[in-house]
Amino acid sequence: MNFLSGALLDRCSKLRRDPEWLRIAFHDPAARILCYCNGEPLMRGGVENPEPILLSGAGNHAIEPSQAIFLGVEQGTPVFALDRPRSEDFGQGDVRAGGVPTDFREIAAMMSRPAGALLAYGRALLLWHAKHPFCSVCGSPSAPAEGGHLRRCTNESCLAEHYPRTDPAVIMLVVSGSQCLLGRQAAWPPNLYSTLAGFVEGGESLEEAVRREVQEEAGVEVGEVEYHSSQPWPFPSSLMIGFTGYARTREIRLNDSELSDARWFSREEIENQVREGSLRLPRPVSIARRMVEDWIATGSSSGPTD
Amino acid sequence: MNFLSGALLDRCSKLRRDPEWLRIAFHDPAARILCYCNGEPLMRGGVENPEPILLSGAGNHAIEPSQAIFLGVEQGTPVFALDRPRSEDFGQGDVRAGGVPTDFREIAAMMSRPAGALLAYGRALLLWHAKHPFCSVCGSPSAPAEGGHLRRCTNESCLAEHYPRTDPAVIMLVVSGSQCLLGRQAAWPPNLYSTLAGFVEGGESLEEAVRREVQEEAGVEVGEVEYHSSQPWPFPSSLMIGFTGYARTREIRLNDSELSDARWFSREEIENQVREGSLRLPRPVSIARRMVEDWIATGSSSGPTD
Repeated sequence: MNFLSGALLDRCSKLRRDPEWLRIAFHDPAARILCYCNGEPLMRGGVENPEPILLSGAGNHAIEPSQAIFLGVEQGTPVFALDRPRSEDFGQGDVRAGGVPTDFREIAAMMSRPAGALLAYGRALLLWHAKHPFCSVCGSPSAPAEGGHLRRCTNESCLAEHYPRTDPAVIMLVVSGSQCLLGRQAAWPPNLYSTLAGFVEGGESLEEAVRREVQEEAGVEVGEVEYHSSQPWPFPSSLMIGFTGYARTREIRLNDSELSDARWFSREEIENQVREGSLRLPRPVSIARRMVEDWIATGSSSGPTD
Repeated sequence: MNFLSGALLDRCSKLRRDPEWLRIAFHDPAARILCYCNGEPLMRGGVENPEPILLSGAGNHAIEPSQAIFLGVEQGTPVFALDRPRSEDFGQGDVRAGGVPTDFREIAAMMSRPAGALLAYGRALLLWHAKHPFCSVCGSPSAPAEGGHLRRCTNESCLAEHYPRTDPAVIMLVVSGSQCLLGRQAAWPPNLYSTLAGFVEGGESLEEAVRREVQEEAGVEVGEVEYHSSQPWPFPSSLMIGFTGYARTREIRLNDSELSDARWFSREEIENQVREGSLRLPRPVSIARRMVEDWIATGSSSGPTD
């Protein structure tokens, strides 16, 4: 299981449509609110031992219930998420306030899977709300409903319903014999290489998206494609769908401007260069890192199974 | 490969960002425009032998180039898609006009994979534009750019960029021993049963979405989950991601209001009841139908591989 998934949560998809049930859940003394500033969680404990700040809704007059996003019920505890532009704006409804907004990517791998998944879930929803205050059909303001899992247009002659957006992206480890293809973008930190990736477009399957993206970015033709795993990636709203792609050609041509370099690496080259510091792999939290490590762990040159 | 994928198309993802290149492609005498009315393609040949109407852009003064969506280049031919509220509004730029707007779901399985995939792709993009004339960030009008693969806010102080939306959904054949789980919604035609399905939410992997949806809709617990295949599903903007789910429990509880019935079926029951007319499976075009047929074809009770 990848990081950012594995929340131990009942999302209560049906119950959250009932405003009265939500109101009672919010005022439950056991209810907890995850706090974010502009999409980054409020944390204490530093990078080593990050712990999210959890406020209580009951009696916290700085928090308007309709602004809190209902995430679900975790072991009997209703959990909400709330975003504020400044950490000071959360009030002092709970003695444990006082955390600092923290780059979620930096800390997610230092938390348990369930804790990271919960923060990822809240982040995805909050960022969606932040980018969708208006109705895309008619331009009128829209308002959150169903605990934040819907926005409804406020214009009585429109009333369009808008659901949270999740953008599916394919991410692929392309292999050829005993080597894999990694690339880098010009803006990345020095020596960082990762798997290729890109958004799925209309009218294509995931497998087609894998082949198209590798062709576009590196000029390499991919034949067979095998599913690996998937990962929610709330930066801001992606769902990464991981595949192994088996290359039919080896020549690399950087066709579009996406990558500044792409290379074939053997397992030994990756291990040696990472040790020497001349190669950096993506963050441990990412499915990209997991796919590279899984491939190294298979130890031998594996080809397509057919 | 599922229906609605398999377009023989170079999407020219980089070139389409160049307005001058797009202008030349549109006026290429070889260029063709797929025509739609409110998202349904203009077809001739009836349900038996459906053929899309293809107009020429060059010299067709009824068509504004900026309104045409660039799909890609198919064997040297630039292909665009255009939507109009009435089929009469397309003008007569090509002698082959005169088709009728046709329910795409009814005809998609009667066409070649590439032809159906092209129509699916155009439909997904056109329906996205139809639902997004305004900027969700500030409420101002947005305008298409990059051949219709982007909408940019026209408000100079916003200029937010919006990309086409694709909603990932999981669709799963849940199996238990020699039986599979099919369900039906109250609004469906009589006797129609299909695989369970649902949209992926934030903060969950595809595998978690499979387990959550089956639990929510049928009260059945799913353990191991295996990827099957994927299918673009432009009704209006889904990407269906198919899995086999191995049930850990058998008791069916219709927890939410999504399904009106769900049952376990053996292969023989499906085949017999379909023959007798007391069971209908989903349309041949759908990944749901393909998953049921694949499972029947495996012939024996297969369990998880581990």
